[in-house]
Amino acid sequence: MQNLTNSIEQEVRFSEVDSLGIVWHGHYLQYFEDGREAFGKKYGMGYLDFYSHGYVVPIVNSQCNYKRFLRYGDRIVIETTFIPCASAKINFEYRLINAGTKELIATGSTLQVFLSRDNLVLQLTNPDFFQDWKVKQGLV
Amino acid sequence: MQNLTNSIEQEVRFSEVDSLGIVWHGHYLQYFEDGREAFGKKYGMGYLDFYSHGYVVPIVNSQCNYKRFLRYGDRIVIETTFIPCASAKINFEYRLINAGTKELIATGSTLQVFLSRDNLVLQLTNPDFFQDWKVKQGLV
Amino acid sequence: MQNLTNSIEQEVRFSEVDSLGIVWHGHYLQYFEDGREAFGKKYGMGYLDFYSHGYVVPIVNSQCNYKRFLRYGDRIVIETTFIPCASAKINFEYRLINAGTKELIATGSTLQVFLSRDNLVLQLTNPDFFQDWKVKQGLV
Amino acid sequence: MQNLTNSIEQEVRFSEVDSLGIVWHGHYLQYFEDGREAFGKKYGMGYLDFYSHGYVVPIVNSQCNYKRFLRYGDRIVIETTFIPCASAKINFEYRLINAGTKELIATGSTLQVFLSRDNLVLQLTNPDFFQDWKVKQGLV
Repeated sequence: MQNLTNSIEQEVRFSEVDSLGIVWHGHYLQYFEDGREAFGKKYGMGYLDFYSHGYVVPIVNSQCNYKRFLRYGDRIVIETTFIPCASAKINFEYRLINAGTKELIATGSTLQVFLSRDNLVLQLTNPDFFQDWKVKQGLV
Repeated sequence: MQNLTNSIEQEVRFSEVDSLGIVWHGHYLQYFEDGREAFGKKYGMGYLDFYSHGYVVPIVNSQCNYKRFLRYGDRIVIETTFIPCASAKINFEYRLINAGTKELIATGSTLQVFLSRDNLVLQLTNPDFFQDWKVKQGLV
Repeated sequence: MQNLTNSIEQEVRFSEVDSLGIVWHGHYLQYFEDGREAFGKKYGMGYLDFYSHGYVVPIVNSQCNYKRFLRYGDRIVIETTFIPCASAKINFEYRLINAGTKELIATGSTLQVFLSRDNLVLQLTNPDFFQDWKVKQGLV
Repeated sequence: MQNLTNSIEQEVRFSEVDSLGIVWHGHYLQYFEDGREAFGKKYGMGYLDFYSHGYVVPIVNSQCNYKRFLRYGDRIVIETTFIPCASAKINFEYRLINAGTKELIATGSTLQVFLSRDNLVLQLTNPDFFQDWKVKQGLV
């Protein structure tokens, strides 16, 4: 059994850099989401997949450890790893790496829960389609 | 007959400033929206008012002339003026002023149209409630 | 000895709400920064104060627990509390509260370190002016 | 003599979509900048090139005509065209196209001026390196 990981690479935008010449810390949650969306697309488990099955999956916890700076012109590798958990939650861990220097820039995580799309009621057990997906991916 | 204007004052956020130490140009459309929302609240013609009457009012044109810089710590006056027009459109003009120096920072405008909320069909004539509002405000 | 706290109140912007009709999770770090900037202004310990003393104070850790949703039109109370610590770090905790319903929306924290402004070297001890400020505020 | 154009393709991010389910109008200036940065990289005339020659090039005018909506999951083609002008300005025009349907989503333009990097003084004539670049590209 192995964790699922996906990596993408993108460039720091001019507008993401603050007056200190470094990427503003708040944008790292966007980078995590960029990684999560690419993961979802690759493995068929993105926002629109959840939605079509009747669920929305809002984030209930986010964390980020900032270790080094990113500057304009830097290229970033965003590694997104799905961390299986037994409860009805979706847990991702992230690593941001400077594509040029290979230095670790930041690590972080997000936790999402399942709400029914129509009435936003919290789901206490994993939806069947999600459990099936985990089985199919060899994650349980 | 007079134009309706509303002014608000707010501070430049740290995250709005780019690596040149000035507010990133893209944020000015947010300042315009801040002004437009405050106008809508004051005069009872905001997004939620349109929505409750069955309409959404997307922007179809935006323009901005940038004349001077804004820096972190500056306070901005956002003047929002409703420009009456005969066609089924909503036209606002904006002036951004440095609250400290009184210098004109930028001017701009937006144009919005009416779509029915349910099917997003373009409305070719002014909705009644909007025409009534203009009459009540002495704008027609 | 008591923690220093500051509260501000502001409105959810239209642009902060995502396609689910709730504030996008990434904006909460902006709300925390809004609270931190207001705190810094009130107590004379903001970005520009640090800068004028020769330091920049980047964020090295951020966390957020999302408990309830915020929607367009909601007013938010942002409570920012300075948490004294012995090491050369700046620790804030945040509480976001729906100003209308008084419900707790989110809690979170940030951790900042001191870098010298000129060469970005990490400071291992608290700068004198910061230590003085803590004494003056009755925090040590 | 021909205009220089560059096209890139990217996906609508979840966070770019507003509560109406469409990309928030303010993000289009970011799309224009994404196109401009890719153009600058391709043709050796980006922010860092200007900077290394001693100039910054802030935007003094932006315009956008919004014609159709973009939704989450849509792919966008951003066409960026350099429009030569005699005066000391940089003029770009943009076309956003839905990569799937080929529909025109928006058109727009930006105008930039040259300021010396060190004292932010406006340049009334084209810097030599920029004039040379235009000659080399067959634009004059």
